[in-house]
Amino acid sequence: MMKILLSNDDGVHAPGIHALYRALKEVADVRVIAPDRNCSGASNSLTLHNPLRLQRLDNGFYSLNGTPTDCVHLGTNSPFADEVDLVVSGINDSPNMGDDVMYSGTVAAAMEGRFKGLPAIAVSMGGKGHDYYDTAARVVADIVQAMESKPLRLDTVLNINVPYTTFDQLKGTRVTRLGRRHRAETMVHDRDPFGREIFWYGPIGHHADDAPDTDFYAVREGYVSITPLSLDMTAKRHQDTLNDWLSDQS
Amino acid sequence: MMKILLSNDDGVHAPGIHALYRALKEVADVRVIAPDRNCSGASNSLTLHNPLRLQRLDNGFYSLNGTPTDCVHLGTNSPFADEVDLVVSGINDSPNMGDDVMYSGTVAAAMEGRFKGLPAIAVSMGGKGHDYYDTAARVVADIVQAMESKPLRLDTVLNINVPYTTFDQLKGTRVTRLGRRHRAETMVHDRDPFGREIFWYGPIGHHADDAPDTDFYAVREGYVSITPLSLDMTAKRHQDTLNDWLSDQS
Amino acid sequence: MMKILLSNDDGVHAPGIHALYRALKEVADVRVIAPDRNCSGASNSLTLHNPLRLQRLDNGFYSLNGTPTDCVHLGTNSPFADEVDLVVSGINDSPNMGDDVMYSGTVAAAMEGRFKGLPAIAVSMGGKGHDYYDTAARVVADIVQAMESKPLRLDTVLNINVPYTTFDQLKGTRVTRLGRRHRAETMVHDRDPFGREIFWYGPIGHHADDAPDTDFYAVREGYVSITPLSLDMTAKRHQDTLNDWLSDQS
Amino acid sequence: MMKILLSNDDGVHAPGIHALYRALKEVADVRVIAPDRNCSGASNSLTLHNPLRLQRLDNGFYSLNGTPTDCVHLGTNSPFADEVDLVVSGINDSPNMGDDVMYSGTVAAAMEGRFKGLPAIAVSMGGKGHDYYDTAARVVADIVQAMESKPLRLDTVLNINVPYTTFDQLKGTRVTRLGRRHRAETMVHDRDPFGREIFWYGPIGHHADDAPDTDFYAVREGYVSITPLSLDMTAKRHQDTLNDWLSDQS
Repeated sequence: MMKILLSNDDGVHAPGIHALYRALKEVADVRVIAPDRNCSGASNSLTLHNPLRLQRLDNGFYSLNGTPTDCVHLGTNSPFADEVDLVVSGINDSPNMGDDVMYSGTVAAAMEGRFKGLPAIAVSMGGKGHDYYDTAARVVADIVQAMESKPLRLDTVLNINVPYTTFDQLKGTRVTRLGRRHRAETMVHDRDPFGREIFWYGPIGHHADDAPDTDFYAVREGYVSITPLSLDMTAKRHQDTLNDWLSDQS
Repeated sequence: MMKILLSNDDGVHAPGIHALYRALKEVADVRVIAPDRNCSGASNSLTLHNPLRLQRLDNGFYSLNGTPTDCVHLGTNSPFADEVDLVVSGINDSPNMGDDVMYSGTVAAAMEGRFKGLPAIAVSMGGKGHDYYDTAARVVADIVQAMESKPLRLDTVLNINVPYTTFDQLKGTRVTRLGRRHRAETMVHDRDPFGREIFWYGPIGHHADDAPDTDFYAVREGYVSITPLSLDMTAKRHQDTLNDWLSDQS
Repeated sequence: MMKILLSNDDGVHAPGIHALYRALKEVADVRVIAPDRNCSGASNSLTLHNPLRLQRLDNGFYSLNGTPTDCVHLGTNSPFADEVDLVVSGINDSPNMGDDVMYSGTVAAAMEGRFKGLPAIAVSMGGKGHDYYDTAARVVADIVQAMESKPLRLDTVLNINVPYTTFDQLKGTRVTRLGRRHRAETMVHDRDPFGREIFWYGPIGHHADDAPDTDFYAVREGYVSITPLSLDMTAKRHQDTLNDWLSDQS
Repeated sequence: MMKILLSNDDGVHAPGIHALYRALKEVADVRVIAPDRNCSGASNSLTLHNPLRLQRLDNGFYSLNGTPTDCVHLGTNSPFADEVDLVVSGINDSPNMGDDVMYSGTVAAAMEGRFKGLPAIAVSMGGKGHDYYDTAARVVADIVQAMESKPLRLDTVLNINVPYTTFDQLKGTRVTRLGRRHRAETMVHDRDPFGREIFWYGPIGHHADDAPDTDFYAVREGYVSITPLSLDMTAKRHQDTLNDWLSDQS
């Protein structure tokens, strides 16, 4: 059986990771290490300045006082690590598409697995709510079984977003690229109950690029979106222009 | 004069940001918004669950109880935002090259500027230490002046690493790609002074790919390394293979 | 049935609060609101700068991202509050005697109940370990039943420390005063794995005053120690001396 | 010259501690170790689970990523400790009177000095605002000078609250006891900008006991209030009643 390390960013008590655990344990050996608190927006952040503490819960899940990246690092590259064949992260309780991916702790957990040389999947609900985690869980379990019968050898993270509906209503699967959002609305300037100035993030922006080949479009049309993500951020296409510009300076 | 928003991830009291401020204010209008604490390893993390609080320090810098990304978001997309022409982040007290870029708060601050449609520069010392911030500060000030005379129109972040030496000893500038590291050493399993189990991150890995076109190589040879970074993480080159694999399943 | 609000400072997953819950639900209506993380050393600290978030766990316990004081305040003085007849805090996994009481989150949770006008009990294991929580749980359940049959009307917190042994081995109960410790050992000056200077608290001090009427003595001799604690910190006995000293100044 | 360790709970950048530093350095050797962030409401909390990190700021103050208690413990009982004759904490930006004392980080810093065997003073503005720190600073400097000429040997913390006015308008000094408040208003139940439920503390309660011998009364009438605080929380007056009650049970 495949050995799966399962994590998330909504925290070890979130319903999404429980639904995914139930589906995956039918097809694989699953070990759960997840943050003790909701880490939405954690991106690839690491806990470098404080030590990490692990706690085994009654249900056998491990709870860590750290980020999603910390969880996967601990589960793959520490004295506590077991053998791992695949890293899975999710189910996030809302979409991780377009520009959001850069801030996502769900995606970061999968990326950390990929940095360790492992295949890795991040999965998120394409709509906000708690009703259809079983749909997404079954999508992932099917992919895991397919990987067992025919390995997918790609140096990439599969970023999966599943429409917020029943499994039977899914229209199929699309390989997509990340869309783009308009910038977020301006931060909320408020006062706390003691009268002190505070700022909160505002609502995320609307879709700026949701062309038919994007994740935004696929999910809206009822398809499971799978976007392969690169770990190499070098913008190769800009290297020549940059060289030219620098030459002009000297 | 160009209006610069300056941030970092080592925190508002770090010597690197002070050195960079001194150099930049000679050539631009500079506003500093930086984290109140060292945020190394913060990546693109956002503070979504707690409100942000801003404090003006005696030297005119603004201190925020948040991440580098929070600082730039607040400075560009909030009621507190001013007009900004360029986002600069650093000087980080150690290199941000290769795989490290994904975890870097310094680079994340610049990326946040880029997400807002602004040109953005991240700058780090190519070696660990506090002796040559003036070298890196002068490198950035020169680039800013060059941008004023001839704009660089690229949808990218410039990730700059400066050799740990005097300005006069620099051999030149190289446009590079990100190298790759071997995986980090295993986490340190230890006990705190009360006998409880803790884990710490271990030392980062050695260079696995430091070919002549990488940032690792350029800095080691005494050149300023500039890597253009992409904000689009879609791995386009894997889309066909993934489509083929999926077709096989059905 | 008496309505009990149960909290602690070791966190909602600690075995001590589970043992106490099992014993108390036989004799009372029990609602649990406890910190999501270990808060040892939290004292009476309040979360004033960030909002509090409550999560209901599968076992019906409520988990709060705050301190023990926050938990009791929320459970007694918020729109979420229920009717409460008694606040109980514990079982702490180690003693809270002598000077330690001032730093204890366990005791603070009980004090917060007392500030709200409620009877309140803090209970701790007199020795370090997880083997005899049932002893302490039974001690508290017995006291709660006694309170039901004959109310104890005292404007005080009962601070209970239970010897680390079986219920049958207990020698009885003693009303005690707080002992005193020698000062703690000097802090540990160390370096983290990245070579940066850090400090940790050192071991607590030995007993400086463990006379027969103290909590230290009672527990060592095998007795349950009950110390009534005052919420009024005014040192009345020093007021005259202080007045004299001030008169001399003018 | 007397050696003073100065701390606070509003954080190392707060104007209150700067005003107090300026006044005290005229009459004593002063070393500042204060929290890097606002720690209002920290009470006597300790940082037991994470290491502490110290940073020297440009003005010579030391900034610590910990609580007021941590600061004083580090300054008196660590390899970093200097000789200390007196611990002073403040100036807090609002009153610490009555029941508030139990939650105050300002008072806790002074108590920590007292636990280490040192004389200790906590000082707070009797009104909310930043206009009259110099009044409170001069009050404390005068007391420090008086202590030098005639030591005050009391095992107690002096909790000082200074009316919010000019020094010349002060009517004198009163030795007081702590007053009592009515319970705080109910917590504020709100939603964050993302629609998630949150709770905030509500406004503190009105005065329930502000008799002429209380701190509330003294400050309202224009007098500096000095309340000696006890470190021994044993409620001796309740011991007999408790013994009687227990005897009835057996």
